[in-house]
Amino acid sequence: MKEFQTIEQNFKVSYSYNLYTTEHLFEKDNPVFVNLFKNIQGASKVLFVIDSQVAEKHSSLVRQITTYCANFSEKILLKTSPLILEGGEQIKNNSTHVEYVLNAIEGSNICRHSYVAVIGGGALIDMVGYAAAIAHRGVRLIRIPTTVLSQNDSAVGVKNSINFFGKKNFLGTFAPPFAIINDKAFLRTLEKRDWISGISEAVKVALIKDAQFYSFIKENAELLKNRDEDAMQYLIYRCAALHMEHISSGDPFESGSSRPLDFGHWSAHKLEQMTHYELRHGEAVAKGIALDVTYSFLIKKISENTLDDILTVMLAIGFDLNFPEDEEQINEMLLGIEEFREHLGGKLTITLIDEIGKKTDVHAIDFSIMKQAVQLLKTKLNK
Amino acid sequence: MKEFQTIEQNFKVSYSYNLYTTEHLFEKDNPVFVNLFKNIQGASKVLFVIDSQVAEKHSSLVRQITTYCANFSEKILLKTSPLILEGGEQIKNNSTHVEYVLNAIEGSNICRHSYVAVIGGGALIDMVGYAAAIAHRGVRLIRIPTTVLSQNDSAVGVKNSINFFGKKNFLGTFAPPFAIINDKAFLRTLEKRDWISGISEAVKVALIKDAQFYSFIKENAELLKNRDEDAMQYLIYRCAALHMEHISSGDPFESGSSRPLDFGHWSAHKLEQMTHYELRHGEAVAKGIALDVTYSFLIKKISENTLDDILTVMLAIGFDLNFPEDEEQINEMLLGIEEFREHLGGKLTITLIDEIGKKTDVHAIDFSIMKQAVQLLKTKLNK
Repeated sequence: MKEFQTIEQNFKVSYSYNLYTTEHLFEKDNPVFVNLFKNIQGASKVLFVIDSQVAEKHSSLVRQITTYCANFSEKILLKTSPLILEGGEQIKNNSTHVEYVLNAIEGSNICRHSYVAVIGGGALIDMVGYAAAIAHRGVRLIRIPTTVLSQNDSAVGVKNSINFFGKKNFLGTFAPPFAIINDKAFLRTLEKRDWISGISEAVKVALIKDAQFYSFIKENAELLKNRDEDAMQYLIYRCAALHMEHISSGDPFESGSSRPLDFGHWSAHKLEQMTHYELRHGEAVAKGIALDVTYSFLIKKISENTLDDILTVMLAIGFDLNFPEDEEQINEMLLGIEEFREHLGGKLTITLIDEIGKKTDVHAIDFSIMKQAVQLLKTKLNK
Repeated sequence: MKEFQTIEQNFKVSYSYNLYTTEHLFEKDNPVFVNLFKNIQGASKVLFVIDSQVAEKHSSLVRQITTYCANFSEKILLKTSPLILEGGEQIKNNSTHVEYVLNAIEGSNICRHSYVAVIGGGALIDMVGYAAAIAHRGVRLIRIPTTVLSQNDSAVGVKNSINFFGKKNFLGTFAPPFAIINDKAFLRTLEKRDWISGISEAVKVALIKDAQFYSFIKENAELLKNRDEDAMQYLIYRCAALHMEHISSGDPFESGSSRPLDFGHWSAHKLEQMTHYELRHGEAVAKGIALDVTYSFLIKKISENTLDDILTVMLAIGFDLNFPEDEEQINEMLLGIEEFREHLGGKLTITLIDEIGKKTDVHAIDFSIMKQAVQLLKTKLNK
């Protein structure tokens, strides 16, 4: 009988969305939120999910949102009161919270042309984003990140996730948001440690991509530490822009093996897990960067001057760059290299730097040199 | 302070995959499966999931797969024996089976550069595809559909799903496969009802897109009914090609409101649910098409001759086009219109036809005319 030819399928899917920067998003006359719907006919259903700490510290927020949406009722339809959920990494540790959000999506008749708006830190946004991505094969997500880390990194990306089988981000999808809105008013109520911790992602992206941005961070280290708003606003803006540029110019859904934005992250993920997420992601990333630049020096990719410069800047910002003393713990941490490869898939690819602002990939890590790096870092910190 | 500009993000993601047609895929010298890996370095991990009925009817399949992979061990690494799971819609009704597959993915260290190969009908492929799509944000999926319906329609698309909250396909994602392989040997062991039921999707796509293909189906109705392999092979090939063309030329991830490939599906989904999936999807779609072409006639979009021609062809293939007698059940079925809109989201958009091979969208359905259509269809069938 006749043989049939192979049918080839090729297509592209376009994504387009904006990151807006504003202050007091839900104040009466702020047009940013309602303008998201300006090209959409009729009133769109929106389900809000808010981090309980944010709702507590901004005690008029829920009322403001309700009033704001009522004022713009021809564009926005609030079917239920905002859900208030605890933030933090533990919300990603099982599927109970995902089902809670799915339940609200179903109960509010949120469809693929409706919206979930999530206000909170990176963990809450990851979890709610995952629920939104799997409901009806994806309802539209508006991310309103409230921490430095989520405003400059996690919320501007295209991923969502929860932890499963005790593995960080085991479940998730790639799902670009409908929009992201950074509201700087939320940063004012952050604990000091959350203000500082998110800066590590800016150091990371500066080190691999932008020497000028690194100089900005270096010159403003003290201001950043002391909560200067202007310095922080520029840091967030530039860091977010570099992340977004990377995503759109490369391999947005990570089909390859290289993931330079995960510079410093292999040990960070493992340290977070080992401390049961006592360590914040940003704090762990700072340690991870310190370790991988020390390793970069030991394998002769950067000079000792460069290494010292980076460590000095990170200490000036206020990062704690210490590692566990115990050798067993260090050995456990090194298992993070294989876990990192496995989650990413493909060939082991660890990003290091050749100079400030220039990344380089390696495909093997020498464990004994990495252990030397831990020791050398300790020696330098004790000087 | 300085205001920061909105950051605009725009990018495209490319997808590329093939549908292969073969016979006896895992026979020793069949190159189709191993060739999937020809451009990939080293041995790729593959986890097989097989429909238990398929494994039973093709009792040497599991052994064949094991031998085949062992023969090509430099390209394919089988870490565990194939999972054998029951097929059918009930496998989509809760998340237990998804977690079972996720567990195997985790246990076999399947990463984003490894593969899940699923052999079975549309429901199993939907469920396993969903598990693969959410693990590590998407591991590669090879679909090997074994029914007419999955070979010509569901497995060639870009969706996966499970049912949740009692709603069909409430959870799912858009996730193009790595490859699809149609093996015609699997069709030989289908029950008669499964051989016939999948033909409805070919009638559907012919009616909305391709008058010539409709003529082929009309001329071959008897042969198709009597399990002629050549006629069926062409039907599957052309139907799959039309579906794939539609996906790549339009709106692959369905961001808009129109979904012409769901012609006849609003009542089909509801009837499936009302019969607790006693009715096969393809059988329900045949009824749904019959109803919507009758409605198309009543609102003067097609002539009575055209209507009669379509009904005659569908009856000749062997479809049962009867609807429930009970008026309450018809009323319940009509609720399917709103559920269809809600799942799809956006504006109600129901596809009808203007003539054979030409679709038309309407944005409202007149319930009393739809009830008349049920009656008229009954009268015509009793003639």
